[in-house]
Amino acid sequence: MELEELGIREECGLFGCITAGEWPTQLDVPHVITLGLVGLQHRGQESAGIVTSDGEALPAFKMHKGMGLVNHVFSEENLKKLSVSNLGIGHTRYSTTGHSELQNCQPFVVETLHGKIAVAHNGELVNAVRLRRKLMRHGVGLSTSSDSELITQLLAFTPPLEEDDTPDWIARIKNLMNETPTSYSLLIMYNDVIYGVRDPYGNRPLCIGRLIPVNADGKGKNSSETEGWVISSESCSFLSIGAQYDREVAPGEIVKLSRHGVQTLDIVPRPRGDTAAFCIFEYVYFSRPDSIFEGQMVYSVRQRCGRQLAIEAPVEADLVSTVPESATPAALGYAEQCGLRYVEVLCKNRYVGRTFIQPNMRLRQLGVAKKFGVLSDNFAGKKVVLVDDSIVRGNTISPIIKLLRDSGAKEVHIRVASPPIRFPCYMGINIPTKEELIANKPEFHNLASYIGADSVVYLSVEGLTSAVQEGIKSVKVKENGLSTNNTPVGAIGHCTACLTGEYPVELEW
Amino acid sequence: MELEELGIREECGLFGCITAGEWPTQLDVPHVITLGLVGLQHRGQESAGIVTSDGEALPAFKMHKGMGLVNHVFSEENLKKLSVSNLGIGHTRYSTTGHSELQNCQPFVVETLHGKIAVAHNGELVNAVRLRRKLMRHGVGLSTSSDSELITQLLAFTPPLEEDDTPDWIARIKNLMNETPTSYSLLIMYNDVIYGVRDPYGNRPLCIGRLIPVNADGKGKNSSETEGWVISSESCSFLSIGAQYDREVAPGEIVKLSRHGVQTLDIVPRPRGDTAAFCIFEYVYFSRPDSIFEGQMVYSVRQRCGRQLAIEAPVEADLVSTVPESATPAALGYAEQCGLRYVEVLCKNRYVGRTFIQPNMRLRQLGVAKKFGVLSDNFAGKKVVLVDDSIVRGNTISPIIKLLRDSGAKEVHIRVASPPIRFPCYMGINIPTKEELIANKPEFHNLASYIGADSVVYLSVEGLTSAVQEGIKSVKVKENGLSTNNTPVGAIGHCTACLTGEYPVELEW
Amino acid sequence: MELEELGIREECGLFGCITAGEWPTQLDVPHVITLGLVGLQHRGQESAGIVTSDGEALPAFKMHKGMGLVNHVFSEENLKKLSVSNLGIGHTRYSTTGHSELQNCQPFVVETLHGKIAVAHNGELVNAVRLRRKLMRHGVGLSTSSDSELITQLLAFTPPLEEDDTPDWIARIKNLMNETPTSYSLLIMYNDVIYGVRDPYGNRPLCIGRLIPVNADGKGKNSSETEGWVISSESCSFLSIGAQYDREVAPGEIVKLSRHGVQTLDIVPRPRGDTAAFCIFEYVYFSRPDSIFEGQMVYSVRQRCGRQLAIEAPVEADLVSTVPESATPAALGYAEQCGLRYVEVLCKNRYVGRTFIQPNMRLRQLGVAKKFGVLSDNFAGKKVVLVDDSIVRGNTISPIIKLLRDSGAKEVHIRVASPPIRFPCYMGINIPTKEELIANKPEFHNLASYIGADSVVYLSVEGLTSAVQEGIKSVKVKENGLSTNNTPVGAIGHCTACLTGEYPVELEW
Amino acid sequence: MELEELGIREECGLFGCITAGEWPTQLDVPHVITLGLVGLQHRGQESAGIVTSDGEALPAFKMHKGMGLVNHVFSEENLKKLSVSNLGIGHTRYSTTGHSELQNCQPFVVETLHGKIAVAHNGELVNAVRLRRKLMRHGVGLSTSSDSELITQLLAFTPPLEEDDTPDWIARIKNLMNETPTSYSLLIMYNDVIYGVRDPYGNRPLCIGRLIPVNADGKGKNSSETEGWVISSESCSFLSIGAQYDREVAPGEIVKLSRHGVQTLDIVPRPRGDTAAFCIFEYVYFSRPDSIFEGQMVYSVRQRCGRQLAIEAPVEADLVSTVPESATPAALGYAEQCGLRYVEVLCKNRYVGRTFIQPNMRLRQLGVAKKFGVLSDNFAGKKVVLVDDSIVRGNTISPIIKLLRDSGAKEVHIRVASPPIRFPCYMGINIPTKEELIANKPEFHNLASYIGADSVVYLSVEGLTSAVQEGIKSVKVKENGLSTNNTPVGAIGHCTACLTGEYPVELEW
Repeated sequence: MELEELGIREECGLFGCITAGEWPTQLDVPHVITLGLVGLQHRGQESAGIVTSDGEALPAFKMHKGMGLVNHVFSEENLKKLSVSNLGIGHTRYSTTGHSELQNCQPFVVETLHGKIAVAHNGELVNAVRLRRKLMRHGVGLSTSSDSELITQLLAFTPPLEEDDTPDWIARIKNLMNETPTSYSLLIMYNDVIYGVRDPYGNRPLCIGRLIPVNADGKGKNSSETEGWVISSESCSFLSIGAQYDREVAPGEIVKLSRHGVQTLDIVPRPRGDTAAFCIFEYVYFSRPDSIFEGQMVYSVRQRCGRQLAIEAPVEADLVSTVPESATPAALGYAEQCGLRYVEVLCKNRYVGRTFIQPNMRLRQLGVAKKFGVLSDNFAGKKVVLVDDSIVRGNTISPIIKLLRDSGAKEVHIRVASPPIRFPCYMGINIPTKEELIANKPEFHNLASYIGADSVVYLSVEGLTSAVQEGIKSVKVKENGLSTNNTPVGAIGHCTACLTGEYPVELEW
Repeated sequence: MELEELGIREECGLFGCITAGEWPTQLDVPHVITLGLVGLQHRGQESAGIVTSDGEALPAFKMHKGMGLVNHVFSEENLKKLSVSNLGIGHTRYSTTGHSELQNCQPFVVETLHGKIAVAHNGELVNAVRLRRKLMRHGVGLSTSSDSELITQLLAFTPPLEEDDTPDWIARIKNLMNETPTSYSLLIMYNDVIYGVRDPYGNRPLCIGRLIPVNADGKGKNSSETEGWVISSESCSFLSIGAQYDREVAPGEIVKLSRHGVQTLDIVPRPRGDTAAFCIFEYVYFSRPDSIFEGQMVYSVRQRCGRQLAIEAPVEADLVSTVPESATPAALGYAEQCGLRYVEVLCKNRYVGRTFIQPNMRLRQLGVAKKFGVLSDNFAGKKVVLVDDSIVRGNTISPIIKLLRDSGAKEVHIRVASPPIRFPCYMGINIPTKEELIANKPEFHNLASYIGADSVVYLSVEGLTSAVQEGIKSVKVKENGLSTNNTPVGAIGHCTACLTGEYPVELEW
Repeated sequence: MELEELGIREECGLFGCITAGEWPTQLDVPHVITLGLVGLQHRGQESAGIVTSDGEALPAFKMHKGMGLVNHVFSEENLKKLSVSNLGIGHTRYSTTGHSELQNCQPFVVETLHGKIAVAHNGELVNAVRLRRKLMRHGVGLSTSSDSELITQLLAFTPPLEEDDTPDWIARIKNLMNETPTSYSLLIMYNDVIYGVRDPYGNRPLCIGRLIPVNADGKGKNSSETEGWVISSESCSFLSIGAQYDREVAPGEIVKLSRHGVQTLDIVPRPRGDTAAFCIFEYVYFSRPDSIFEGQMVYSVRQRCGRQLAIEAPVEADLVSTVPESATPAALGYAEQCGLRYVEVLCKNRYVGRTFIQPNMRLRQLGVAKKFGVLSDNFAGKKVVLVDDSIVRGNTISPIIKLLRDSGAKEVHIRVASPPIRFPCYMGINIPTKEELIANKPEFHNLASYIGADSVVYLSVEGLTSAVQEGIKSVKVKENGLSTNNTPVGAIGHCTACLTGEYPVELEW
Repeated sequence: MELEELGIREECGLFGCITAGEWPTQLDVPHVITLGLVGLQHRGQESAGIVTSDGEALPAFKMHKGMGLVNHVFSEENLKKLSVSNLGIGHTRYSTTGHSELQNCQPFVVETLHGKIAVAHNGELVNAVRLRRKLMRHGVGLSTSSDSELITQLLAFTPPLEEDDTPDWIARIKNLMNETPTSYSLLIMYNDVIYGVRDPYGNRPLCIGRLIPVNADGKGKNSSETEGWVISSESCSFLSIGAQYDREVAPGEIVKLSRHGVQTLDIVPRPRGDTAAFCIFEYVYFSRPDSIFEGQMVYSVRQRCGRQLAIEAPVEADLVSTVPESATPAALGYAEQCGLRYVEVLCKNRYVGRTFIQPNMRLRQLGVAKKFGVLSDNFAGKKVVLVDDSIVRGNTISPIIKLLRDSGAKEVHIRVASPPIRFPCYMGINIPTKEELIANKPEFHNLASYIGADSVVYLSVEGLTSAVQEGIKSVKVKENGLSTNNTPVGAIGHCTACLTGEYPVELEW
């Protein structure tokens, strides 16, 4: 609940598409990307942008960006401007760095000596300040505060160049990866290819799918024929465009998507000893439940968190419920583990947005409760276990508990399906300051009384980690289009920095 | 699922508010109405409007209307225009009659010989054509196709009038009710009062609440003090403004809300023998689950529909699931009755709206499936009972069944938590033509095979009716502000015309 | 200058068009009306609207209205909505009565017992208050404060009606004209005809033109062939659509435009003894200089005003100039009469609108001067006669005089090409209150010193009247499409009420 | 006429303002700049932008840009965002290079190693292609096609830099001026100063003014007190903000505006022998008539062009007139020289914009004539000399000549107050291709017959040049705030490349 209320939810979504075979094909690239971005809308609702290209030697880049939801930005009329195209990349955004302005919208396009490149980025560079100064010291003026402009200029920057140089983009990408260890997943469009890059720590997700022919009856055939390739932050975006999930991009991997297929160009290693650091909150909260990471469905991880929580913190109660909607898998898991009945106690009004008008009076005091209706007949006179996804600052669960009590709940026990957040994130998640986190406050010691619950228990870090690791299957990397099953050394590993303070890389200040 | 896809969902929402005690008070009437309308947003997303008044002898009416969601129409700036006010009425709308244009937005305001009145309306007049001609025959020009303008002019129209006449609005309202039996719930603002009217058949809902002081900790006290009165299509709108549900307006009742309280002015009877005819689809689909009608929660009725369906049409299966979100109470009821496990199999992308861009290619074939992600790990290899709220035309459930099968479901059994729709509605619900309804087509005899299911069963009309009636508690009517517990004769009774063809009143043509 | 600054300029513009011959024709009626309205834009910049019709027995009316300039309201996309059509009427508006809101935009459309009518109106009814009460007494609710809704309902209102009645619109129009003597010019569209009406006093202008074929080289042929008929507030709107001016509608005349031509249906007489009362400010200021009234060009009248002013108030000076742009014809006339050199001394910045942002500081003090640049080389060291169109409140000419002095003018003599305004107008012109008019203030006796001029003289009322009457040619009225040259009795006569207090009709209060 | 029709009119306008004395002052910098830009609106109506700063050591830059007119872009609300500020620069734009998109709007802001700079530019770099490649070769990616981004990056670019370097902006500006000879006037804001730069050829104008206290009566005192300094493309923008014209920035001059005053930092010389090359079309057409260049008013030059034309090409006629509005000074000059009467024959509808909807039919054929009304009484039966500012492609004057003939003109003689354009401009003016210019076509030899005139004569190049040079007064340059009267060598000189093909610098390809 609080993750959503605090706007911790959003980061960014990447989606790229390239058609296979002889160009031009029948595939409507701008539409595919738009639908893909709609499938990633939960990763950023502030702005959206798409850049497409015909993929010719002197490619014509077409760009459209705008503030707002994907459906709003990409009207039929705006989509027409992006045709005819054979490949393209898109982006949905909630700003982590950079102000909320049109000029910070991605993808970024710059002209370089060897032509135009378009770049889309998810993540936040841990050493952005140093890199900005480095570029500026070489005389590059930066026109935005965005990491993505920074990455774009870093890719362009390798002086001095000769005009007849072959543009060695792989060398430039590897150079970039040496400059900054994390956090980034990237799509880079140049001429007739899209490069996909995941940082060596694998902090942000990136995966590949295959567009297959769709039958007239509306369903993709499990065909061996390929109409194109897609690359996305999350696999949940594949179903709505009739694409099949293929695999994840491995930490440190550079892939090239061309009309001929998908090719691994290189896998940049981490410094000796370091493990991967996939953001564990992608499992806990950010990603859509039907997305697949490390061979497992996000929904299943959340369900196991609920089960684990029931093991760690059982309670004598009549029923289990959820703070809709994100905590529902955990609540169902908790109920199943305990053998308690699962019921709904809250009904969410989805028309109450975060940007809702601020009433200047008594109405403000109703707070978050105005988002919910109460299904009192379902719990009046009962002892309720209410499962929430997270409690961060501790000030949004109280009105809900009161609503339930006032509507007749006999007891209200809060179970939190993730551990308390205690530390800041420097890799793209907009977490409140350390002082604002309830886990760092004196009230944390009497949290149940502070929020008005009969009891409150968080999932342990170990519980979360085991819930995640239990379902991981080995990650395959395709090299030169062929699949391999040997997981790169250290490919598995998760960033729990906000919970434990153990950051994957040493931070510069 | 199909009710939403076909846009059958929407009708209109009414919300009025008047402050109690000495005017002006601290209560911010425009804000209260706006929040109330947000709580009724599910009843109409096309336009919204509010008219407020200072309630003086020559009242200054302030109006703002606009296309779009309540939050969009009522920005802080627009709300300022509606202050300072002591009473007001608001409306959210999806057109049932009248084109989708700003000039059809409600409330309607007209100047009459005795001053201005503002009118908001939910419903559709069964004899609108005759009433329009009657008015026009008397020389009144009608500037819109809206029933609400018609009602407003009918209220204004009682020639000849003298300027020193006392404006007998109760007589005018009763005259209107004699002219048209159904379907309407009305709010009428005049000078310093709001009249609330429910047609004699009680076809559309209307209920009354009381604004009580809110504590600094954000929760309404169960206080005996009254800050104001609210009147609304559904009680679900009360929680978010800190109001307490008081009671329903009875069929045929005319109530007056003033600063002094709520008063029943009259209860207009139905013709001898007629029973009330509250639209049964308010229970099945239109209303929010936490709303209360006839003493029971809508959610509970839906849950009982699911239980009844399990009794009527059990199936050998491994698990029960829902087409989110409207069928969930029924699915939980079904699962509970059968003793089967309830799991989630579909994950809804709430960013895919009905107005979504139409892909001009292969993507169109993916149809409704693009709204959903599939939680395949939850049901692969299992026999699934999938509960839906309704199947109307029969063309949206097929792609979902295929999604499940392609993702590994062993069997898919469809259970529909309402009876098949077979007849048109003339009282405000926008149902497809008789020919388009699947229940009137040959394919209905082989529906399972037509939609690709292993089996499909609808709830019986009797099953629905008993699920509704089981929970009804007697309805109290307050007279002169005092509560009585004697239910008016025939107050209970439901319109099932779209299911049975039995219309509550004889239709004119 | 002040007329523009005070917003006295605007009233309303009417434009109608009907195609001749077999329908449908090649003529693009919505485009013709749009261009016609652009030609009348000086008569109202607040809103614009067009209603078109296919002219069938049950005509499909198409309407588009919007706030802003004609070009802004009628984009290509909006124009498409108005096709295919064979006739239509349009309106540009600056509110004289009625608030500045979309719902007051014209034309108004109402459905009557005999079908829809669309009405557009220029003017203000002197007895509107009484007529509103009369209608309301008969039970008609009025939804706007606009005279045009009032007229529309008056046309609809003739109870009781039978459905098989022949709709006698001529009788209704004459009935309306008996109810209200002035001020109105009207366009009324019904089925396949447009009625044009000018009030018996002829207070507002209305004239008829003929659309002739246009050559490929861009010029209308003086052809006898007719492609359609147009009716407009001013003839200046004809040139841009390739139409030829035909004649004025006479005071009190009702004309019918059909596909077969233009027909005079009746000429409603004024009460015995009354003369016509064409608003003399149409000559002085409102109309475009190339428009023709009473057989003469407006420009010529203004030029004669300047000559007359030179005769009435000569001055020893070096040169004559104008406050651009409206006073230029008078200035040229003055210069010619005196034999003095005409030069330009001010350069107008046409990008400074009346709605310009209000600087909250020193810049406010610069006032009207910020609209002008000074051409100092043209007058430094010289004695200047500056001709302005009017001085109403007296506070806008001062900064201009100072600008000239500061830039080196030796003397500045103001000559005003119209008499002082002393009385309110009740026929549609938005004049400041009597107390605000400089002519009613003590300062008027020392006006030159008050405004900082060396001298200031207004044109006399007699001078204005003679300048107007000198060029009037007899007005022809076509009956049944044939031209006649007998001017109706009392057709000539001008309303000078704002100058003399002699109103054309007795005013009711 | 054709210059306006062909959109040759627009280039760009620059306006900067800094307050004098102790900061903060009472001066409302964003308002002053907005009003200044309104005064330069004729130089660009496509977009507008302002960047302001508090001028602190780590200055807070505030920026607002938008498409459309200055009044539209800078609402009161948007202006608030720019406060509180002590200095700022603004820009109005019509694209000469760079597409018509928000991202190309100026001013440009970039962060450099030494902080942020904001840059506004008028002109077009003759060697932009080479400079772009040079920057890209050094690894700078360019995100727009705008010369202004190029200039900004060139200013930022002087690798390698050390962080403790003193930022020597003067050296950087001089370096830029060495890289590119013309065409540019620049405003550069950095910390607490504004640098003004005019290219060594003086191709684009730039001048300085002084803000003096304004009296309560709305007029600036000729005071010795200084409230601030302004720098602008044209002096016409000074009057509306109560500023006094001080002087021009000299060709090649770099000035610094600070709170302490205006200081000449350097004057970069041209290569030996080169004369200055102030664009002669600033006199002929671009600039507002009340602007001052080289000590003379633009209006006077245009008037002299008319006189010179009368000497070069007299004609037996009855009267002289103008194609309003730009040709009026020349027409008055011609009339005076000939002793013929000056009258108005055309009346311009200022509501017909260049973006006007394109009628898809007969109306297109009316062409430019739809902008004009005809004052036929003024010239019927007369021989008319019609003075126009330029004839470029020759296809807009024909319909006007026909209008006059059809309205009774006996003869129509065209006199063009500038020489024929024969060559392209590479310095910022968007001239049709050489092939499209009428002067390069066979029809030019029979131009009168081609356009339908009785005769047509252009002003000679020598005539234009002498009309310009006759009024030039020596240009003073203030050094270190002190005025000097010695004109820099070669300061006087005009670019007539589009007329003669003699370009001021050798062009690179």
